[in-house]
Amino acid sequence: MENHQKYMQMAIILAKKGRGLVNPNPLVGAVIVKDDLIIGRGYHEKYGGLHAERNALVSCTQSPEGATLYVNLEPCCHTGKTPPCTEAIMQSKIARVVVGAKDPNPLVGGKGIEILRKNGITVITDVLEEECRELNEVFFHYIQNRTPYVVMKYAMTLDGKIATYSGKSQWITGELARVQVHQLRNEYKGIMIGVNTVIKDDPLLTCRIEDGRNPSRIICDTHLRTPITAKIVESASEIPTYIGTCSRDEKKMDQFRKKGCRLLPVSPKNEYLNLNDLVHQLGQEKIDGILLEGGGTLNYSALKSGIVDKLQVYIAPKIFGGATAISPVEGQGIEDPSEAFQFKDRKIKILGVDICLEYYKR
Amino acid sequence: MENHQKYMQMAIILAKKGRGLVNPNPLVGAVIVKDDLIIGRGYHEKYGGLHAERNALVSCTQSPEGATLYVNLEPCCHTGKTPPCTEAIMQSKIARVVVGAKDPNPLVGGKGIEILRKNGITVITDVLEEECRELNEVFFHYIQNRTPYVVMKYAMTLDGKIATYSGKSQWITGELARVQVHQLRNEYKGIMIGVNTVIKDDPLLTCRIEDGRNPSRIICDTHLRTPITAKIVESASEIPTYIGTCSRDEKKMDQFRKKGCRLLPVSPKNEYLNLNDLVHQLGQEKIDGILLEGGGTLNYSALKSGIVDKLQVYIAPKIFGGATAISPVEGQGIEDPSEAFQFKDRKIKILGVDICLEYYKR
Repeated sequence: MENHQKYMQMAIILAKKGRGLVNPNPLVGAVIVKDDLIIGRGYHEKYGGLHAERNALVSCTQSPEGATLYVNLEPCCHTGKTPPCTEAIMQSKIARVVVGAKDPNPLVGGKGIEILRKNGITVITDVLEEECRELNEVFFHYIQNRTPYVVMKYAMTLDGKIATYSGKSQWITGELARVQVHQLRNEYKGIMIGVNTVIKDDPLLTCRIEDGRNPSRIICDTHLRTPITAKIVESASEIPTYIGTCSRDEKKMDQFRKKGCRLLPVSPKNEYLNLNDLVHQLGQEKIDGILLEGGGTLNYSALKSGIVDKLQVYIAPKIFGGATAISPVEGQGIEDPSEAFQFKDRKIKILGVDICLEYYKR
Repeated sequence: MENHQKYMQMAIILAKKGRGLVNPNPLVGAVIVKDDLIIGRGYHEKYGGLHAERNALVSCTQSPEGATLYVNLEPCCHTGKTPPCTEAIMQSKIARVVVGAKDPNPLVGGKGIEILRKNGITVITDVLEEECRELNEVFFHYIQNRTPYVVMKYAMTLDGKIATYSGKSQWITGELARVQVHQLRNEYKGIMIGVNTVIKDDPLLTCRIEDGRNPSRIICDTHLRTPITAKIVESASEIPTYIGTCSRDEKKMDQFRKKGCRLLPVSPKNEYLNLNDLVHQLGQEKIDGILLEGGGTLNYSALKSGIVDKLQVYIAPKIFGGATAISPVEGQGIEDPSEAFQFKDRKIKILGVDICLEYYKR
């Protein structure tokens, strides 16, 4: 009896250890099994470091000759920062490779599997493929589009409020949901907010979990209204900070540059930032994924411009009420229900008394 | 081996057949089992009709002597519209009675069980008690408080909108969710809306399922602004219709009375209907449960007055956006998150692409 799914699951768990450390590379884990005994395991630990397959081979407690290698992503066959993994696999005399998802990278794209097969190695594909694809949804999107994968995230009450009428929002969700948000900040390379949030809340947007990595901060600021004294600006020399703006006031821009901010000149669109232009520039900066923690105005612009790939809605078991209380998506809004932004593939996560609804763009 | 839970589940399924037909009586089903064979079953079919236990005894295919009776609610021991069920059970020589939930009715309250035990019948209690209590949550509330059990229900988008900025709301949820709402209209004795909804949508609030029963319509109308030509008013001679109002304009009130409406004079509270007074009067009218399909203003008043017992939120996988689009709970709202209306005991139901979140007042 074979345990392909069990070992692939282990590879996925190993891969996740690289979260926040390997972008824009994919998350990859590898397990080497011989006579139903795990003899080696490894994962891609750090951007520029050894690939998972090599780490697993290095860790082997006995010869990998004739063994089976489980890996969530098709092994690479090109020379990047490290030589091709296919070569290492052949040299080690691995007899069989079990792959989760094929690599959508045009430089690999099935070629890794082909090379292995040509060299007499048995290759089994698509084991836990859906889980493996989801694990690297950011990588898959980035490698194909060269723009960041954008996750729109907000926490609201059961009546759709992200703050009370007086603007207070601390706290809506409980501890568990807030911890999860900090885990996301660790995973995603960038975090995006609007200038109104900077002015109102003056946040730092750091990742407050142990050994967490701070995401690059991205402020959408059409008219460069960010206060020069904002905490984000003050900490820009330590944590990468981008300001996307339509302003071309070089004097003002220089003030921010001196503080360590990167100014991205963005084209305007309907008196607002052209978000498609902005994400294109961020992609060139190797920002492969963005957590969008916008207010109602930015969220609406993001949906309208089509940059949102995934939606994460945290819902707390409470009601604020208030005709003037702020809702998660504002702007003008659509006129007829048939024009609504549609989502699919719902997932429901339970976080104590709160829930998290996850959807993909339809 | 005994199958108490299995037979109690059957009793519950039978009990549900009485939905919409027995209010303000409880939903009760009974199963009679002898040598692990079902020899009789019945349920309370109609207000004023035979109780479940008697219907089950009548249906027996062999003598119930020595058999076990399963019933979701403690048998009654008082003479109401029918003689006590405890007597019928003793006469039939049933040996054992398995009860789901005790009766909170002060006229029964454990006495039924006591009488059975005193007469040598074995009584087992609390089998599937939670399910049995939930099944009759309306009855339990009404018998103890003499006011209707109020379920606040709304359908919204993922960004908390119940209509687009232009007021369009057809449709938010899909077919399955809408069918469920009509099932609720069949179950609950009353349906409550605000006058603004009457003016804006001119609804009928009928139950559009086969053999469905129309709920009594209740309009909250502080200043008696309901149009005399409204569909609800026009159909008031066929379907019971209440208008709760602070107006004492007898001439105007008579116009509605002539159409068949019942006018309930309600005291004012903060320039609005005193909803506590209204539900008290509705309780006297034997309205044991209300489905509140209010707009944002009425929903907020209902929460503030504390009349809401249960919350049902249908969420569709779409976003409308719109700073001026209507949200499910409006009014002034609370000022600080710590003052939020809190809910507990979440249940999640999947209805195709939509979900339904259910909570109880905390």
